[in-house]
Amino acid sequence: MSQTQVTMRDVARTAGVHPGTVSRVLNPRTRPLVNPATAERVEQVAREMGYSLNPIARGLKTRRTFSVGVLIPDLTNPLFPPIIRGIERVLDAAGYTALVASTDGEPARERQRLEALIARQVDGFVIATAQRRHPVVADAIASELAVVLVNRTVEGEGVFAVVPDDRRGSAMAVDHLAALGHTRIGHIAGPQQTTTGLLRYRGFVEAMEDAGVAPDRGLIAQGDAFTIAAGAQAARELLAAADPPTGIVAANDLLALGAYTALAEAGLDCPGDVSVVGFNDMPFADRFAPPLTTVHIPHGHIGARAAELLLERIEDPAATPQTLVFEPTLRVRGSTAAPARRRRPAGSGGTASRGSRAAAPPP
Amino acid sequence: MSQTQVTMRDVARTAGVHPGTVSRVLNPRTRPLVNPATAERVEQVAREMGYSLNPIARGLKTRRTFSVGVLIPDLTNPLFPPIIRGIERVLDAAGYTALVASTDGEPARERQRLEALIARQVDGFVIATAQRRHPVVADAIASELAVVLVNRTVEGEGVFAVVPDDRRGSAMAVDHLAALGHTRIGHIAGPQQTTTGLLRYRGFVEAMEDAGVAPDRGLIAQGDAFTIAAGAQAARELLAAADPPTGIVAANDLLALGAYTALAEAGLDCPGDVSVVGFNDMPFADRFAPPLTTVHIPHGHIGARAAELLLERIEDPAATPQTLVFEPTLRVRGSTAAPARRRRPAGSGGTASRGSRAAAPPP
Repeated sequence: MSQTQVTMRDVARTAGVHPGTVSRVLNPRTRPLVNPATAERVEQVAREMGYSLNPIARGLKTRRTFSVGVLIPDLTNPLFPPIIRGIERVLDAAGYTALVASTDGEPARERQRLEALIARQVDGFVIATAQRRHPVVADAIASELAVVLVNRTVEGEGVFAVVPDDRRGSAMAVDHLAALGHTRIGHIAGPQQTTTGLLRYRGFVEAMEDAGVAPDRGLIAQGDAFTIAAGAQAARELLAAADPPTGIVAANDLLALGAYTALAEAGLDCPGDVSVVGFNDMPFADRFAPPLTTVHIPHGHIGARAAELLLERIEDPAATPQTLVFEPTLRVRGSTAAPARRRRPAGSGGTASRGSRAAAPPP
Repeated sequence: MSQTQVTMRDVARTAGVHPGTVSRVLNPRTRPLVNPATAERVEQVAREMGYSLNPIARGLKTRRTFSVGVLIPDLTNPLFPPIIRGIERVLDAAGYTALVASTDGEPARERQRLEALIARQVDGFVIATAQRRHPVVADAIASELAVVLVNRTVEGEGVFAVVPDDRRGSAMAVDHLAALGHTRIGHIAGPQQTTTGLLRYRGFVEAMEDAGVAPDRGLIAQGDAFTIAAGAQAARELLAAADPPTGIVAANDLLALGAYTALAEAGLDCPGDVSVVGFNDMPFADRFAPPLTTVHIPHGHIGARAAELLLERIEDPAATPQTLVFEPTLRVRGSTAAPARRRRPAGSGGTASRGSRAAAPPP
């Protein structure tokens, strides 16, 4: 009985090769792709461990394809390549190949991608496109598919996910601006149908209340996508307020870049007139003018842990659903400073960045 | 006879659906995935056009999987997502799914990715990982695989490729710096085993000669990868020269960002002390400090044309090999200016950016 428990991974580990190599050796059609000495060693180990070479048993064992589908909403958001790289690092080491497909956040396209990858018989999915209520993902989880969500998650049962602590990140951004002396703090919220958009918004509101500052609804603008264009539009709304904010917490770095655009249009300096905090610490955030203060998320680690969780789930379909939540950290750079003293007579340093910490908000 | 010429695409066009939908309708296992009214219309059109529903003929016709493998060297280089997006735009419209795999430029990993995608029965490949002499690509082209190279190409026969005019781009960068008055112009070359690295280097040397300036070998440094780190290392070498350059042409934008790093380390201002030109106009190039003057390549178009070429090649295995070369354009931004007057007594405006056009290079 114990012999039937031997898996392809056991053989691979003993032979010192990837499971994919074992699969290739045991399939007569792919065996020529493997170095002959390696192939002989693998066959010998498989024999010694009692791993069946019987064609019928092989048919069962080699059903695994050692490929994994990765669904990404938007490859041009620089957030996702480091996540994919983390996923690939773990999958590579286990002999798996990641096949990445992007969906543009369109449900029809996403379902089509999922079907195309299922037809290509991938062993599981890492999905970065989740929305809070997500029929495609719910269907996939309800079926036999091995699915791990990354960065965003869904509301529901049976979910495996690896996500940042979104509320905590927003709180770090608010606390940073409050400590600099800002009291008029605005928020550019992301799409509320995503957990990142919703939780970062809720974290913002809660942190404002915790800081003893009732958030002003007029200082919360809604981005309809996580893009520079949406951030610019939302920031224009904030700047048009009767009493505009001196600090802005954006729900991601692209929205923050959009805020830069709107500030430049209005002839305002960042951080001299308005401080901006992003979220993600995406690649190149430290290279922007000004370098962006932002909430750092360890995206490589998040991707790697998602891949590890998926491999566990593939090995053990009865694994217990679990969500890993990563702690963010704040990276303070050049886009935040104390608020300028405002509404004072000209000449008193209107654009200076040395503000009074205790300044009460204007009536 | 003419009836046997009817293809799945003809049926799709007449029925007003994607070829992938026709494939799904004609396969009993996937037919339930298609809207019943659409499925009936497709079947009727197929019957009317004499497109065989005979199972054996279907076995031949539906061998197509409507998926395409895309091999990318490094997803974290922001150059590639716009190329992939261009590829997807065309493939989507034709009912195909792009499955993206990245290789880190490692031949073993690349061969493994290619095999994994072949095992998943993709209909063809768009490959962005090409090196000038490339056994994996040569093998793929020599076999029956439909392959189109994008951005980089190989030396050899039977090649379908879509690439930028790399020599011309380097010449635009040199001419821009020369017109500003620079005569000490350095080059950060990319890896010479890629066509982009080699041709941008050759374009640099030729343009310097055309401008009547013999390129100084001491002002050409070699980056061993298209990365920020490699660019910083190469720029440090250039700045350590006895008579360092006042302008640098980098073989891509990441190398140019590395030059920014090296200049900041040396306490030098860009463009006050040294002008920098990049290559690619990758996303965010206009957001850096300073905004990067760079050679713009229409990456979305390059990706789209590569996908179109691949679809043609899939439809017609006898198509004539061809290379499309796209004309670049120069985007002038804040990282270039006239050279500062150098080696003058202090106080004469050493960091001013108004240089003398006719200044002879120092002996």
